[in-house]
Amino acid sequence: MSRVERLPNGLVLALEERDYPGVAFQLLVPAGAVNEPEGLLGASTLIEGWLWKGAGELDARGLAQALDSLGVRRQSGAGLEYTLFAAAFLPEVLEEVFRLYALLLLNPRLPEEGFEAVRSVALQALLSQEDQPARKLFSELRKRVFLSPHGRDPLGEEESLKRATPEAVREDYRRRYTPKGAILAVAGGISWERLLGAVEPLLAWEGEEAFYPTPLLSEPHSFTLKRPTAQVQIGLAYSDVGPEDPRFYAARLALEVLSGGMSSRLFTEVREKRGLVYAVSAFPAGVKGQGLLMAYGGTTKERARETLRVMLAEMERLAEGVTEEELSRAKVGLKTALVMADESIRSRAGSMARDLYMLGRIRPLSEIEGAIEATDLRAVNAFLRAHPYRNPWVGLLGEVDDVS
Amino acid sequence: MSRVERLPNGLVLALEERDYPGVAFQLLVPAGAVNEPEGLLGASTLIEGWLWKGAGELDARGLAQALDSLGVRRQSGAGLEYTLFAAAFLPEVLEEVFRLYALLLLNPRLPEEGFEAVRSVALQALLSQEDQPARKLFSELRKRVFLSPHGRDPLGEEESLKRATPEAVREDYRRRYTPKGAILAVAGGISWERLLGAVEPLLAWEGEEAFYPTPLLSEPHSFTLKRPTAQVQIGLAYSDVGPEDPRFYAARLALEVLSGGMSSRLFTEVREKRGLVYAVSAFPAGVKGQGLLMAYGGTTKERARETLRVMLAEMERLAEGVTEEELSRAKVGLKTALVMADESIRSRAGSMARDLYMLGRIRPLSEIEGAIEATDLRAVNAFLRAHPYRNPWVGLLGEVDDVS
Repeated sequence: MSRVERLPNGLVLALEERDYPGVAFQLLVPAGAVNEPEGLLGASTLIEGWLWKGAGELDARGLAQALDSLGVRRQSGAGLEYTLFAAAFLPEVLEEVFRLYALLLLNPRLPEEGFEAVRSVALQALLSQEDQPARKLFSELRKRVFLSPHGRDPLGEEESLKRATPEAVREDYRRRYTPKGAILAVAGGISWERLLGAVEPLLAWEGEEAFYPTPLLSEPHSFTLKRPTAQVQIGLAYSDVGPEDPRFYAARLALEVLSGGMSSRLFTEVREKRGLVYAVSAFPAGVKGQGLLMAYGGTTKERARETLRVMLAEMERLAEGVTEEELSRAKVGLKTALVMADESIRSRAGSMARDLYMLGRIRPLSEIEGAIEATDLRAVNAFLRAHPYRNPWVGLLGEVDDVS
Repeated sequence: MSRVERLPNGLVLALEERDYPGVAFQLLVPAGAVNEPEGLLGASTLIEGWLWKGAGELDARGLAQALDSLGVRRQSGAGLEYTLFAAAFLPEVLEEVFRLYALLLLNPRLPEEGFEAVRSVALQALLSQEDQPARKLFSELRKRVFLSPHGRDPLGEEESLKRATPEAVREDYRRRYTPKGAILAVAGGISWERLLGAVEPLLAWEGEEAFYPTPLLSEPHSFTLKRPTAQVQIGLAYSDVGPEDPRFYAARLALEVLSGGMSSRLFTEVREKRGLVYAVSAFPAGVKGQGLLMAYGGTTKERARETLRVMLAEMERLAEGVTEEELSRAKVGLKTALVMADESIRSRAGSMARDLYMLGRIRPLSEIEGAIEATDLRAVNAFLRAHPYRNPWVGLLGEVDDVS
């Protein structure tokens, strides 16, 4: 079981104790592309890169060396809805790790002379997306799906990145790096008391309540990006229910029937029977307050039309319902995946943080298992009838003159 | 501790018992690109895809449904040196899982009518590589580095895939899907006795000793692939020592200094100080009997020359040795990574199988930790002096007229 408390400064702290020789955390800071100022798109990415240029008594090299000396395996990056700092390490260094992360978050130097390298890395990341056709397509698809800032790409935009000044980014850091809306989820072999002591330096963190816009969808439509790629990339988006909806598990099980294993409908119809693609899949891609299901396929120019047709048909066919056998396979598949993911403290810290962000609470494994078990064929098929997967946003990228 | 036995038919079976509610295995079948017949490149990929088209009493759909009903999370694919079948599931279905995998391996239907879809998927995979510049570059780099078949791409070649006949692929399956050279590594909450009972159906598997060619390197040289990509991709390859070499841990620690964390030399010099790239890394890329170190960077056309220069300089500078501080950080980093990876039974089954393939035995965690600890500064720097990272194979992909 996990314990959750909101600390006096607003930071939400959660721990799941595990008898295991390691500790993992995920820290979500409420600074993402969705709440960037208009005109400063990509600021979250710039801030995250800039933070590592030194904090408190440590310069960039000192900070990196200090964490590497403690054996902290870490990742961080700005995303659509928040900036994520993830770390895993051995329990004996817990206090020193949080002292350093508190320095990073509360007392970064944000030095003038490091800014150009940060900007340059951000521009490189944006440029590298141009060589990744599937990623490029889904970035554009999200832009089309949302009227609200939820369609933004966390990498930012070239013009905006080029125009950003150190002053504006510093100011944005001060506003959006706030504990009110931040979440720290920890899993591993330490006690609640020890954790509370270790995060003490984070209590000095102060700030306003985080701001989040309301998601707003556009009218579904189609678009094409003409590119001289070898394959044609196909992306679909459908409005869906999110984890806060009582029908969530019905939707999740239907997705498993659609794309959960080698016997799933998309894999069978698109790849196994027809050999249309190497990769095809459907996956949840929603934001807080707005569920979204997306589907992907990549194929030749000649087979793009047929691939699109089969994908659309399989999505639509869900409204006719799934079979008892399909549902039973979907339940076994989801439950096994749950058990396997739960094995890892890093993955557990991740799902704890995600639950706290999306739902404001952590679902115990037993609750999820119970809810999957309790969702019967009637419930799934009633949901699918009432919520048909029709009328999607459709995006194509490639040499696509002949598809429409 | 793990237990290893060679079964009467030649299959090497290993188990590491864990008190954990799940089981994972990796099965290595000695059919990879390296031992494909000359005019049948890509055959390993075709076989692996074709196997799933039905086995014993089950057709393709029946086979996929049977495994999905048991909740088996699985992956499989043909690689350079072997074909890998990986699976994770709950212990209660152990016997049935191995019964199904034995069907797949020993009694596949390899039906004529499924062959064209398999070929088509393989061609799609090859085509999709054309849209992935970094992958394309490293595929070409390996082709250049090896004179032996170790330079082949497991995806095969277009002409060869198009010409392959069902008969030739069936014949190749019979020859190369052999237990003599196959490895089955299992980790999880089951006993040795139970495992032995469960794998019984695999005992009927028979075949000749697997064939592996000896790796042979070319003379280091440079090449460019001109492509209209947004970024220029840079790939380097250096001959290195493998895990069978007594100097392996010295080399591994040097690699950690070079590219192990945010304070590593490549990250600091190429990305943090100069902002030349978004991603830069060095990684082991050897085969059995031939160690290899590769390095990657992606940057703009304008900064490609400088990026290449800095990468080469950092590699060469290793010969001057690393510092006591760098080594100590590298040791902590490697040891923490070991503990974290050991947490997962899937990752443990993977390293067991890899050890058995590369070394013929499984290194206990304590042995690796001990060897890392025992490798002192003298040993690392003596290795680096005697084995300088100079004179690499250099590959560039992009609009690279101005680099040389």
